[in-house]
Amino acid sequence: MDATRDIEALIGLMARLPGLGPRSARRAVLHLIKKRDTQLLPLAQLLADVGRTVRACLNCGNLSTGDICAICDSAKRQTGLICVVEDVADLWAMERAKVFHGRYHVLGGTLSPLDDVGPDDLHIPKLRDRIAAEGVTEVILALNATVEGQTTAHYVAQELAPTGVAISGLAQGVPIGGELDYLDDGTLRAALSARKAF
Amino acid sequence: MDATRDIEALIGLMARLPGLGPRSARRAVLHLIKKRDTQLLPLAQLLADVGRTVRACLNCGNLSTGDICAICDSAKRQTGLICVVEDVADLWAMERAKVFHGRYHVLGGTLSPLDDVGPDDLHIPKLRDRIAAEGVTEVILALNATVEGQTTAHYVAQELAPTGVAISGLAQGVPIGGELDYLDDGTLRAALSARKAF
Ligand SMILES: [Zn+2]
Ligand SMILES: [Zn+2]
Repeated sequence: MDATRDIEALIGLMARLPGLGPRSARRAVLHLIKKRDTQLLPLAQLLADVGRTVRACLNCGNLSTGDICAICDSAKRQTGLICVVEDVADLWAMERAKVFHGRYHVLGGTLSPLDDVGPDDLHIPKLRDRIAAEGVTEVILALNATVEGQTTAHYVAQELAPTGVAISGLAQGVPIGGELDYLDDGTLRAALSARKAF
Repeated sequence: MDATRDIEALIGLMARLPGLGPRSARRAVLHLIKKRDTQLLPLAQLLADVGRTVRACLNCGNLSTGDICAICDSAKRQTGLICVVEDVADLWAMERAKVFHGRYHVLGGTLSPLDDVGPDDLHIPKLRDRIAAEGVTEVILALNATVEGQTTAHYVAQELAPTGVAISGLAQGVPIGGELDYLDDGTLRAALSARKAF
């Protein structure tokens, strides 16, 4: 009997994942078939579970299994402080670093008129609402140091100006352990112009 | 509610796939969650289907949804000719190239006394049985040009010698479009010693 139709469809779906191409997708699928009980079936089950239960927090856009995510719902998080990020991946990076203890607002992208991504798509009105509702005193714009990220940051700052909330951005400069030789010009320029007394 | 337990388990499983690490697994999982209906749920379903239906062909070791695979079962394949490969991935490569029209025998690995992989694990007795049962006149050893592949090829050739079947191996040499400058010494040496009159 022909097993190739399902397997080819599976390889096709895997090949659409970021970081995988046709060849690595084939290798991944063969690997899964060989590890049927310990990897393929658990993966199928977890994907189905996540697909059924996970959605966006109605308050901040983080992933959640209920209307409100664990971070928005936690009494242990500092109130009055919101960190604005582009994507859930950035929220995860902040959480892994264990350096921020307030709440988040996930934009879900950057402003992009060409791709028809406007302020409403990025939940910016919702962010403005939260400032009053949650008694927010400071908003940290932790957007990527890209043109799109910084354009979006400026727009958000402008939109929030009437609320009087303090607005800050992440410092730019040389990363810890960074070797000057490997840094791009923009980073070097930013690090130089923000130089501090030694 | 906390969505992180299932998502972290999912990232952990994805990170065990060949070619993916923790970072690319996180990106893949976020990508899937964003494409819930078009990618995550279809992937979960296909994995479950493949896990339920796909197994090894009892005759040749190719993937199959029944006892006997589509290639062994096809009346269109040339009889009397078996191509021995290490892995299903190699069978796929041969089929993509559309250059072989006989049947296969998938060893499922190479001989490796250290890893406790012996002749029975590689279905070599079954291969010997097939030579009589299918009236095979030629066996092509299409094993990888690695030490393990060639050691296994020599063992298989030795085992099949008493059957009197013709045994061949793939030619070694410069790949089509290959630039000498990029080839390893072993390939160059093999290509030189197998040189042909111009
Ligand atoms: Zn939330
Ligand atoms: Zn078969």
